[in-house]
Amino acid sequence: MSESFWAVVPAGGAGTRLWPLSRRASPKFLHDLTGAGRTLIQTTVDRLAPLAGDRFLVVTGATHLAAVTAQLPEVDPAWIVAEPSPRDSMAAIGLAAALLERHDPEAVMGSFAADHVVTDPDGFRDCVRLAAAVARDGWLVTIGIEPTQPATGFGYVELGAELPHHPGVAAVREFVEKPSAEVATSYVASGRYRWNAGMFVARPSVLLDLLATPDPGFAAALRGIAAAPDTLAEVWPTLPRIAIDHAVAEPAAAAGRVAVVPGTFGWDDVGDFASLTSLIIPDPAGGPAILGDPTLVRSVDATGLVVPQGGRVVAVVGLDDVVVVDTGDAVLVTTRARAQDVRAIVADLADSAPELT
Amino acid sequence: MSESFWAVVPAGGAGTRLWPLSRRASPKFLHDLTGAGRTLIQTTVDRLAPLAGDRFLVVTGATHLAAVTAQLPEVDPAWIVAEPSPRDSMAAIGLAAALLERHDPEAVMGSFAADHVVTDPDGFRDCVRLAAAVARDGWLVTIGIEPTQPATGFGYVELGAELPHHPGVAAVREFVEKPSAEVATSYVASGRYRWNAGMFVARPSVLLDLLATPDPGFAAALRGIAAAPDTLAEVWPTLPRIAIDHAVAEPAAAAGRVAVVPGTFGWDDVGDFASLTSLIIPDPAGGPAILGDPTLVRSVDATGLVVPQGGRVVAVVGLDDVVVVDTGDAVLVTTRARAQDVRAIVADLADSAPELT
Repeated sequence: MSESFWAVVPAGGAGTRLWPLSRRASPKFLHDLTGAGRTLIQTTVDRLAPLAGDRFLVVTGATHLAAVTAQLPEVDPAWIVAEPSPRDSMAAIGLAAALLERHDPEAVMGSFAADHVVTDPDGFRDCVRLAAAVARDGWLVTIGIEPTQPATGFGYVELGAELPHHPGVAAVREFVEKPSAEVATSYVASGRYRWNAGMFVARPSVLLDLLATPDPGFAAALRGIAAAPDTLAEVWPTLPRIAIDHAVAEPAAAAGRVAVVPGTFGWDDVGDFASLTSLIIPDPAGGPAILGDPTLVRSVDATGLVVPQGGRVVAVVGLDDVVVVDTGDAVLVTTRARAQDVRAIVADLADSAPELT
Repeated sequence: MSESFWAVVPAGGAGTRLWPLSRRASPKFLHDLTGAGRTLIQTTVDRLAPLAGDRFLVVTGATHLAAVTAQLPEVDPAWIVAEPSPRDSMAAIGLAAALLERHDPEAVMGSFAADHVVTDPDGFRDCVRLAAAVARDGWLVTIGIEPTQPATGFGYVELGAELPHHPGVAAVREFVEKPSAEVATSYVASGRYRWNAGMFVARPSVLLDLLATPDPGFAAALRGIAAAPDTLAEVWPTLPRIAIDHAVAEPAAAAGRVAVVPGTFGWDDVGDFASLTSLIIPDPAGGPAILGDPTLVRSVDATGLVVPQGGRVVAVVGLDDVVVVDTGDAVLVTTRARAQDVRAIVADLADSAPELT
């Protein structure tokens, strides 16, 4: 890997569908959600270190700066940047691009969320290497995950023509939003769609110039902060709240400037307890998957997921595909099928017991 | 009511199907299981006080003596008797009979478990008054609850001929064990069966003499303890472990010595979380029944029972007839249909974590 590859890790997002594990004050990237013994942000850095060496730039919320710094002793604290407030992914990744553009004009950056899971890191790195090579030619490159099911919880990328000088890499025809089940099925059947995993690889200048086309003020503001870091607190609240997909990826794709490297390395955004269940090694005896100390779990005729994080014994009798999450101050009981609806509990608590959210 | 009516309250039984609420060290009779603000043993005494005045005799395990004494300030501590060890109901109730036989030769005693629930105390007392009147004539009298469903969790009493001088009171043909669902349905359809609620009313001498017929040594041992209370610790471990149903009620019924007063006062032995659920006032909004602080419960599309006793918020999403019990050191999740199988968890813990049972 070229020494000019930088790994950008935006560490944000509330993860409300993983309540009560994930909280505002302790979002999911700070947790070990797979039983690997490392938190999601730690495994993200582990996965990228063979490519990036010590060239990491982490962007996180000011309230998480101390926890992120403590969890990542291998990352230079000078390159852990605190957002004064959450302003969505374009501001976070764009700030990283602006900082790197000044610091290392030869850089290629790859942005990878701090809270995703990859089961084949070698395959992942092969894709990123290829993406970086394409990015050097001036493309904004995304990595499109080969769908293993017609998921309705992810956006998709539609593949266009193969790039002239990069076999196996396609131009992106279009980014599409989370589809209905019917549409997702047609996407998967067509073979022309990949999951949009939110991974973007590009030269920082390319990314900022692509942003400048629709929104020159936004790009200029980011470059201004990079030139005068003291102005961060003042300028930040004026930046648009917009996702990088909408701000850059979609218009750039329409302009034929985005390429997609297909990936098959086992990826999940750990969006809810249903997906989390599938990431945990199943109980060979057929009981529920356990995230935590298995000696705390007792089950009879039960499947699903038990997360004993409160130090208490958790006993489950006669329930299939149940999800039980025990923490120090809250217990959640739901099913894999209803895992998305955990948001409703968090919304309720936000009014009545915000200290629990 | 005659001043010679004594209420005997055997307070024993582990209540393992109500784990983790009920524990060896804190069995169900010490808990408020209906949200009434009084524990089961307190409501038992409340229910009987209009009949018994201050004539209570409570028999409990030595390990529960302090808790029972503290919960029942209205009962003379001299009449709260500690069993040195659990020896089943015949020893407990027989000891009470022997003590009362010496203390008050004119007494009629009625024995009522400390952990049952009665929803119509006036109707209950009417039945006990009638039972006491029949008992004065030398009968062993039980109260047979009119079945509201073909329950398989209770034993039944088969009614025989009406007693000559007591209209509405029948001789007992037979006590029968917990039936299959099919047999229970035929029992209820016949109209000739009542639930055996384990309530027995008799002169103490009648009860002991009925015991002496099949087991003269047992009756003599109990009378010996009453005559020389210092011998309790020595003699107690030699007594047979047998239920009063088998030791006295069944053979006495076969000999035509048992009468049954039918009762319709709403009775339950609170045997498991399924029956407990039906005793709690339902949520008018259609959510789960709650035993505890309702401000700790959040639910979406859920029914069943939530018991928030651990001080934590308990959130339930998308489960019908679920049972969630949160305590300080253990969480149980099951269904009303599987409530009986909680025993299996307790059996497992008895080996692996006895401190939790």
